[in-house]
Amino acid sequence: MRGLYLEHGNLTFRTDLPEPPARPGWTRVRVTLAGICATDQALAKGYLGFTGVPGHEFVGVALDGRLRGRRVVGEINAGCGTCARCQAGDSRHCAERTVLGIVGQPGAFAEILSLPDRNLLAVPDEIDDVAATFTEPLAAALHLQTELGDRAPDRALVIGDGKLGILCAWALARLGHRVTMAGRHPERRALLPPSTAFATGLLETDRPAASVAPFPLAVDASGNPAVLPAVLPLLQPRGLVVLKTTTERPVTADLALVVIHELRIVGSRCGRFAPALAALAQHAVPVERLVAARYPLADGLTAFRHASSRGTLKVLLDLGSP
Amino acid sequence: MRGLYLEHGNLTFRTDLPEPPARPGWTRVRVTLAGICATDQALAKGYLGFTGVPGHEFVGVALDGRLRGRRVVGEINAGCGTCARCQAGDSRHCAERTVLGIVGQPGAFAEILSLPDRNLLAVPDEIDDVAATFTEPLAAALHLQTELGDRAPDRALVIGDGKLGILCAWALARLGHRVTMAGRHPERRALLPPSTAFATGLLETDRPAASVAPFPLAVDASGNPAVLPAVLPLLQPRGLVVLKTTTERPVTADLALVVIHELRIVGSRCGRFAPALAALAQHAVPVERLVAARYPLADGLTAFRHASSRGTLKVLLDLGSP
Repeated sequence: MRGLYLEHGNLTFRTDLPEPPARPGWTRVRVTLAGICATDQALAKGYLGFTGVPGHEFVGVALDGRLRGRRVVGEINAGCGTCARCQAGDSRHCAERTVLGIVGQPGAFAEILSLPDRNLLAVPDEIDDVAATFTEPLAAALHLQTELGDRAPDRALVIGDGKLGILCAWALARLGHRVTMAGRHPERRALLPPSTAFATGLLETDRPAASVAPFPLAVDASGNPAVLPAVLPLLQPRGLVVLKTTTERPVTADLALVVIHELRIVGSRCGRFAPALAALAQHAVPVERLVAARYPLADGLTAFRHASSRGTLKVLLDLGSP
Repeated sequence: MRGLYLEHGNLTFRTDLPEPPARPGWTRVRVTLAGICATDQALAKGYLGFTGVPGHEFVGVALDGRLRGRRVVGEINAGCGTCARCQAGDSRHCAERTVLGIVGQPGAFAEILSLPDRNLLAVPDEIDDVAATFTEPLAAALHLQTELGDRAPDRALVIGDGKLGILCAWALARLGHRVTMAGRHPERRALLPPSTAFATGLLETDRPAASVAPFPLAVDASGNPAVLPAVLPLLQPRGLVVLKTTTERPVTADLALVVIHELRIVGSRCGRFAPALAALAQHAVPVERLVAARYPLADGLTAFRHASSRGTLKVLLDLGSP
């Protein structure tokens, strides 16, 4: 089959990839549309040493199993199925898990992928294919709710006006938070919830942090290791920073404020798909506005180059087109 | 009055210090015994730029107010009394607070100190003066319970076998956790709860982390900026690291594991005194074994030098003796 293949940091378009074999408990999916994520771009640069077909944001049609013939999306962590975490219905932290197109499992940038049956969800008719490809990143953004626990809605700072940061702003706005976006692209104001305040330069060192009322909550979706040390002084005592992105370089920070103000730094990764599908079915998040371009699979390398160019939002790969 | 005075990183013994004046809502306390803490040693090296009488671990006798004539200890954060946090009965994060012997307020290494009435607690007869000076650090250790929330007792790693680390091990053991102490002084095993496992070298880079079953909880009481990056790989998914100590130098760490394993890093500072007094009254924590030496106030500089020498546990200042 046709697909993109990554090996030793070299991405190629291939027409000779083997189709995933039938496997008990797994369903094959013919991919219709897939999204290129910052993680894919990092993998292409060597992150996690992944070899194989990348891609984990997709919508497709199930080729077998209980959802055969239906449009589906799929949660990307494939657990062992037998450990306590998997038995409890959550494979996101199974120690033996593979992750679609990220760890030990071919991904969505090829015509057919395979996932455990239990990972797949049918896509409601209200959600078109473009919106459905945002299920995975929107689920990751909505997963913020888990980290917030019973915190009452309040002011919230989101750092990073890329795709994930924008989705996080929507997730927080849906929970009733008043969001301030610390970004570099004021023109993206139109992509944010209408109530969002936009702040440029909030985290620059030449602007004194004291000029901003401290926040009870900050979400770092910047991928920038300079953000954490700059955001700590902007937090209220017992404030929370949620890290949604990894950084290429290590973070260097004086953590004295973490101790003195009893701050919390919490990592957050994948969310469940059902709440994301519910939000998309309500057209509650205008994800379509985040699409920058759409390329046929055969132009995948061009698509990756486009996705990597500074300031580009979501680039989609169209696997339905020849 | 007599006392130790810190100015521009220079600690002196003085006999001409002014006594704290009477002040509405505040109580003066004649200090009987005081403990030298790592924070005091850091202040003496310039931390927080403190000028004045240091010292915040003490027991004394109230000279006025509702506890006049009684033996007392006192919580060290003196809030404004009017903000929402203070009105809710907790001045530990009042933005306007002073802190006894640490921020904007003369401390316990002088004959008389002053604290808000509401900060003072009477010391039960079951607790002698030596044990009472441990109320503040034991309260800080017991405060771990707040950070743990409703986590069930499990395995817990404590890093740092200094005074605070040892007290944290006791605090966790009291909560039912099975503690592993990562320390450098195996001879301190006798100071730890009997069930504690002692591990040397657990965080050294030459020992593969994979050889240890990962922990759901770690408490960093080491004051060492190299600990956080070394402890992250030792944690289970959704594991918690509580930072009990600040570090002189910034921390440099790859936080990818924080995101991927959804780890939590939480700072923890001062605890409430009532639970600490209850534990001391039950003789539940053998704090007396932590005393390395006891000096009269006039020998305070010698006491500080002793406290600063490597591997020294608690050094006390005796203010009752001439």
